[in-house]
Amino acid sequence: MGTNKGRLRIAVDSMGGDFAPLEIIKGAIQATTGGDLEVLLVGETDLIESVLRKESHDPELISIVNSEGAIQENESPVNALRQRPKASISVSVGLVKQGFADACVTMGSTGAAVAASTFGFGLIAGVERPALAGPVIGFNSQVVLLDVGAGVDLRPSQLLNCGIMGKVFAEKVLDMGSISVGTLSVGSEDEKGNRQIKEAFPLFVESGLPFIGNVEGIDLFDQRPKVIVCDGFLGNVIMKYTEGMGVAMQEFIGKELDAILDQEIIRDIQNKIFSTTNVVESFGGGPLLGVNGITIIGHGRSRAPAIASAINLAKHACEQDFVENMQQEIQQFSRVSD
Amino acid sequence: MGTNKGRLRIAVDSMGGDFAPLEIIKGAIQATTGGDLEVLLVGETDLIESVLRKESHDPELISIVNSEGAIQENESPVNALRQRPKASISVSVGLVKQGFADACVTMGSTGAAVAASTFGFGLIAGVERPALAGPVIGFNSQVVLLDVGAGVDLRPSQLLNCGIMGKVFAEKVLDMGSISVGTLSVGSEDEKGNRQIKEAFPLFVESGLPFIGNVEGIDLFDQRPKVIVCDGFLGNVIMKYTEGMGVAMQEFIGKELDAILDQEIIRDIQNKIFSTTNVVESFGGGPLLGVNGITIIGHGRSRAPAIASAINLAKHACEQDFVENMQQEIQQFSRVSD
Repeated sequence: MGTNKGRLRIAVDSMGGDFAPLEIIKGAIQATTGGDLEVLLVGETDLIESVLRKESHDPELISIVNSEGAIQENESPVNALRQRPKASISVSVGLVKQGFADACVTMGSTGAAVAASTFGFGLIAGVERPALAGPVIGFNSQVVLLDVGAGVDLRPSQLLNCGIMGKVFAEKVLDMGSISVGTLSVGSEDEKGNRQIKEAFPLFVESGLPFIGNVEGIDLFDQRPKVIVCDGFLGNVIMKYTEGMGVAMQEFIGKELDAILDQEIIRDIQNKIFSTTNVVESFGGGPLLGVNGITIIGHGRSRAPAIASAINLAKHACEQDFVENMQQEIQQFSRVSD
Repeated sequence: MGTNKGRLRIAVDSMGGDFAPLEIIKGAIQATTGGDLEVLLVGETDLIESVLRKESHDPELISIVNSEGAIQENESPVNALRQRPKASISVSVGLVKQGFADACVTMGSTGAAVAASTFGFGLIAGVERPALAGPVIGFNSQVVLLDVGAGVDLRPSQLLNCGIMGKVFAEKVLDMGSISVGTLSVGSEDEKGNRQIKEAFPLFVESGLPFIGNVEGIDLFDQRPKVIVCDGFLGNVIMKYTEGMGVAMQEFIGKELDAILDQEIIRDIQNKIFSTTNVVESFGGGPLLGVNGITIIGHGRSRAPAIASAINLAKHACEQDFVENMQQEIQQFSRVSD
């Protein structure tokens, strides 16, 4: 695998995602052009070699680690991982666990990435369930929403976990500075909410987190740095709704401007709307929160530039001691539990 | 109150909403210009008379019914209704209950309208909780989402109630023809969802409704006529999120086009985005579903044109025998219960 020379080394699942392995490999090559990180391409050696032969790259920074098979979106992650222990995501996580890599990146099945990382790295003490977080809309990269899909029917203590993990993610990975934490509800008053939010509310109050109480759907557009906590069911619906809204808004703008502006200008505006409403895609991905290791999970539709950003995000998370910070803050803020 | 002459008569709460009574009265006058309906303006007689004196109207079609006080958004609806039994919303519902009016319309506190209508009209047999429904986004007026705010933590049987009521609303009030019914979830597969949706799923299957299973956030933009059922917590967050998205999109488009198009064209596009993302406001309002009477609840910020549409919606609901249809379909489809 070559010598390390103080460079960080990122394991990249080259078999997961809609455009694997070609776009993954291209993205990995892009990420190494700065010369300050190494990538281990995890996948079927023959396939990866045949791509690498055609793409100009620095062989000192790119190596191949063989894996057998990949896990598809429509499979049960746990069963599939059992049946294919050498699948690309398992090998990628394993490389980190065994110290051969500092972090891993995947565009493959989210469920498989969550399961492989949870089993492989284990949960951080005090964390009950891992979570996924992200800015939901490009209008406002100062708001982090979580959970956006890893966990449904979260218990109050798990929602509090999300608040703490979102804070560390926003401050250490997104460099947002000091943030506040709110719970997503149907009104800003303390007593507003469903049973889940009402039960979680006092835990947030007692936690010592910079808690600002309940916030509403419209506050996702508020410009103050903020972590907004919600159940993964709600977070996932909002993410997918936002993507649909983006497509509809692109069509609307296209029709409105069709007769009055150049097609090129219209396409440019439409592309901006797309990246604004498909933040997961344009953002590259986010780390799985709550596990004892770094896995960046990206969008299946990611192409080379998004993959390069995800790899750089992994590097940044390593440099920020993301996992150690997470372990400390979980200890500090989750002394209260239900 | 004048003679009826076969015209429908709508009681209009003239004290509720941000622009009461002026815009309410103007909207009522607009609604009566066709000569085919009468309006009872419910509110403080002196105040309403002073407005009516300045506005040209047909006195045969506009009458005043006195009320005392109104209920504000920030009050506890139940307590406020007890303290002010002659508040405008209570008098408006009372006029329908006593047969002096065929339906009522309010832009005042949603909570007060729900409580006054539920107490005044009673719930339809088989309905456990009233609900509010509406197309959420103007991109697609073929999708009705409910519940959008009346009930949180709905039980499975209450979600089924929503599916049935949404069907009647879409078919009879919105004239959408035959619709299908879906449950909002995190994936389209039958087994996807939180506990609430998983428990409701078999009730929908057994109900005999035209059930298409789980749908996702992106399906709110699908053009096929559809009723999408969700908990009022989720529905309310989506409504408010959509409004925030509309404001952000208006600003974005304003900046993008600022240097290349006339301000007037930009404002026109921005206004369209506004009405597309503030459907409650541009749509006028919707009926409270599940009660034995017609109450149209509109947005507090409604101005005269929105109020006129809400009054016309009330008229249309009466003509469609909305309540009788609702009673029949509830009987037909809710034989299964949890």
